[in-house]
Amino acid sequence: MAERGVSCSADQIVITTGAQQGLDILARALLEPGGGVLMEEVSYTGAAQAIAAHRPRVWSVPTCARAGIDIDAVEVLLEGGVRPAFLYTVPDFHNPTGSCLTEASRRRLADLAGRFELPLIEDDPYSALRFDGEALPAVRAFDDRWVIYVGSFSKIVAPALRVGWIVVPQGLREAVSIVKEASDLETSALTQRVLERFLSSNALEPHLERLRHSYRERRDAMLDALERHFPSCTRWNRPLGGLFVWVELPPSIRADRLLAEAVDEEGVAFIPGSAFATTRDAGASAMRLSFATCEPAEIDEAVRRLARVLKGRLRDE
Amino acid sequence: MAERGVSCSADQIVITTGAQQGLDILARALLEPGGGVLMEEVSYTGAAQAIAAHRPRVWSVPTCARAGIDIDAVEVLLEGGVRPAFLYTVPDFHNPTGSCLTEASRRRLADLAGRFELPLIEDDPYSALRFDGEALPAVRAFDDRWVIYVGSFSKIVAPALRVGWIVVPQGLREAVSIVKEASDLETSALTQRVLERFLSSNALEPHLERLRHSYRERRDAMLDALERHFPSCTRWNRPLGGLFVWVELPPSIRADRLLAEAVDEEGVAFIPGSAFATTRDAGASAMRLSFATCEPAEIDEAVRRLARVLKGRLRDE
Repeated sequence: MAERGVSCSADQIVITTGAQQGLDILARALLEPGGGVLMEEVSYTGAAQAIAAHRPRVWSVPTCARAGIDIDAVEVLLEGGVRPAFLYTVPDFHNPTGSCLTEASRRRLADLAGRFELPLIEDDPYSALRFDGEALPAVRAFDDRWVIYVGSFSKIVAPALRVGWIVVPQGLREAVSIVKEASDLETSALTQRVLERFLSSNALEPHLERLRHSYRERRDAMLDALERHFPSCTRWNRPLGGLFVWVELPPSIRADRLLAEAVDEEGVAFIPGSAFATTRDAGASAMRLSFATCEPAEIDEAVRRLARVLKGRLRDE
Repeated sequence: MAERGVSCSADQIVITTGAQQGLDILARALLEPGGGVLMEEVSYTGAAQAIAAHRPRVWSVPTCARAGIDIDAVEVLLEGGVRPAFLYTVPDFHNPTGSCLTEASRRRLADLAGRFELPLIEDDPYSALRFDGEALPAVRAFDDRWVIYVGSFSKIVAPALRVGWIVVPQGLREAVSIVKEASDLETSALTQRVLERFLSSNALEPHLERLRHSYRERRDAMLDALERHFPSCTRWNRPLGGLFVWVELPPSIRADRLLAEAVDEEGVAFIPGSAFATTRDAGASAMRLSFATCEPAEIDEAVRRLARVLKGRLRDE
């Protein structure tokens, strides 16, 4: 974390049973009855689940598969007097869009958090999976009073360990500890020891090298396949890391209906953008394609089949 | 579980990250804002923590270190129109009192749950640690629609695994699954596999035999030591299993003040009954003594020192 500007004292780190528990704890510590949250129009479903239990008002701002969260929209809302309990975002290789905030955007977001005393949850499962360019500082690097950093070993070591962590501003430590203890007393000492052994053996860096190599190859295979097979009326981004490509279809195509056909006719699945919607109709004509688990040749074949279904639909219109 | 009358289909079992998560999930699934819970005047602190976040009204009923929860008091409240979101109790070797409900009491409690459609959380971390007599049926054996059974491997295999389970009535399955997923997605597959290997090797039963043998010896050492060293104005129960003896002191003695002296003067600690109070002044003159982690000789010495502090206090009065 240090290389990305996340410095803190040991007592600011709360080990969680996976990052999902981190999000759940933060929602419980920050959200009062009647409160609201600020999220992107498409956002990580696990965060939405953690938040949903509190039935909050959701202020939804646009997001873009290239530039990420629309910071102008955030500023307009805050200047207009909106006071959410927190803002939630994934600055590095966003789920579902794959976007990555520029350094200037990170700084600006942190400044807004400080200026409006807005807790900002920076969810970061993917930043170590960067394929192109240099690592950027975390949003947390620009503000340590309002930015709450959520880390995870799930995407870089193993999800089955269920170990993540939160870097908590001093003022939130007690509230977070109380909720953590009520949630499950403590995170398994066994899985923490397994992880400690792995990390102290210096196995992480070579492991990350292998992951980045393999995922980069798969991302490239997916981008090549999209270029080769997908019709020109579709658009997608080139993620600099992470696991996802976000494909935008013509507005006449509903991705959830396309999914049903793709599964039935071609045995290929994806997550329709609507699954990530925090506001009506967001992502309705978009698909999240994951390149994480398939070999390049399979990716090419899957994208070819998806394109076939899509072209069929476009012809029928 | 089957031998204690807890029968259910596989889809009624929800694996949890320790029983604490089970309690937390149930509080979240059952407690609406403004709701209340029915608990004993002294009750397990982890349950109180899980519940506290919801700031419920707490209806507190008497409990006794011999007979357990005062079922007459429960009935009076329910007949009086009180409608808690649930009743929480530990029927076998109660924490903190060590009490164990009779079979007739279990049946009566289950009948009340059914008659008043009252969800009853039966928290059972200790029943396998029985030293005397035959295992009694779980409360769940007498009602499978309103009794929710919470199990744990923490006291019989290892707390560091963080694996427990809930047996959920059919009508609660979906609500519980939603909260579980929002809490931490799933319980570590690694710790579940470790446990599966242990259980399928038939190592549990001999392990339990060793635990029971060792804890029985320690309980006996503690009861002998109390008999030998404690003044006649004190009372305690003879727990049939579990980890705790509940010692009642003269009402003039506040156990929390005694604790401070015991630690300072004699290097001995216990949990004062007030730490478990769900209503003002409950347990103020009682101590929970745990015989779990000390050898018999240490237990004798510790009780001797505690008695010395106590006798000093009684002389000063």
